[in-house]
Amino acid sequence: MNRVTCDLSISLDGFAAGTGQRLDAPFGDGVGDDGHDLHRWMFAEPEQHAEELAGVTAAGAYVMGRNMFSPGRGEWDLSWTGWWGPNPPYHGPVFVLTHHERASIEMEGGTTFHFVTDGPEAALERAREAAGDKHVAITGGAATVNQYLAAGQIDELRLHVTPVVVGQGERLFTGVGHKALRLISSRCTPMVNHLTYGNA
Amino acid sequence: MNRVTCDLSISLDGFAAGTGQRLDAPFGDGVGDDGHDLHRWMFAEPEQHAEELAGVTAAGAYVMGRNMFSPGRGEWDLSWTGWWGPNPPYHGPVFVLTHHERASIEMEGGTTFHFVTDGPEAALERAREAAGDKHVAITGGAATVNQYLAAGQIDELRLHVTPVVVGQGERLFTGVGHKALRLISSRCTPMVNHLTYGNA
Repeated sequence: MNRVTCDLSISLDGFAAGTGQRLDAPFGDGVGDDGHDLHRWMFAEPEQHAEELAGVTAAGAYVMGRNMFSPGRGEWDLSWTGWWGPNPPYHGPVFVLTHHERASIEMEGGTTFHFVTDGPEAALERAREAAGDKHVAITGGAATVNQYLAAGQIDELRLHVTPVVVGQGERLFTGVGHKALRLISSRCTPMVNHLTYGNA
Repeated sequence: MNRVTCDLSISLDGFAAGTGQRLDAPFGDGVGDDGHDLHRWMFAEPEQHAEELAGVTAAGAYVMGRNMFSPGRGEWDLSWTGWWGPNPPYHGPVFVLTHHERASIEMEGGTTFHFVTDGPEAALERAREAAGDKHVAITGGAATVNQYLAAGQIDELRLHVTPVVVGQGERLFTGVGHKALRLISSRCTPMVNHLTYGNA
């Protein structure tokens, strides 16, 4: 069965995104007010993090939470095609969890957003089928990752911890319960600590 | 002025101690139900973590929160001399934050517990005076560390992160607000990740 990975950029206090996600802002503001801090390592020092960056988009298929894809909570805009512009970085099928039926959107560069209304299990199953012999990646946000963590369905959790305390946002591990993991690797620069965890 | 360090063993979700601290238990149960998991690296693989272990008790003086020293919340037992037995590992002056006046307790091996009733600033000042040319260490628990972090008084924060999610307890960084740190070093074994942070 396909391995399931998850890359998540978080703050030192475990938040995956800040408050203040908004549509009327330049590309990328889906991550919220603190999100830029948390994702700066991807843009400021790409050569120092080439391996980790490549890993984020190396899956055969992706599962994405509704809040990561769409702008607001509770609204649903059919003209919205994600935060990533016409050519998203996934270059493969992305299964978006939602309660609203919607036709798939084929983007440039091989990314297709599919909308799954029958829950996280179904989304993961469809992603496994689509991934071929590659792995499946849970892209976030934190609430979605927490669901899959609680269900024990993430084989490899790769955290990218920025040394900043933000105090608010969506927190990783909320509601996950007691869980023992195994620390596989740790690598750091002053800007970020890359940690890879497997199941114990 | 003396440098201020803080070593804290935490879970992956940022908890420094679990629930269930109790007196009627063998030595060490001041750390609570999950505390043994969080501190296992100190006992299970001491040779692999010799440098970090030595660092924990290398200060000239210590500041300790009341809950770390004493058994219950709200009670105060004058026969209580800490969780560490007759010869605590500090071998120097330990300034315990409390609201209850109490005479100092001289233990074996050079540890003396002093009780400070006029607040964290006063405790830190007394520890600085007592530390000579060595540094001062904030020993915990999380609530006390959070107070000093919020006040910007910790120069070097050394986290020892055990790959376990515990979901409850005293959480590091609660109430600290927005704060940027600098990641100085990271070293890991499968059992623990040692992280050292300085001020940005």
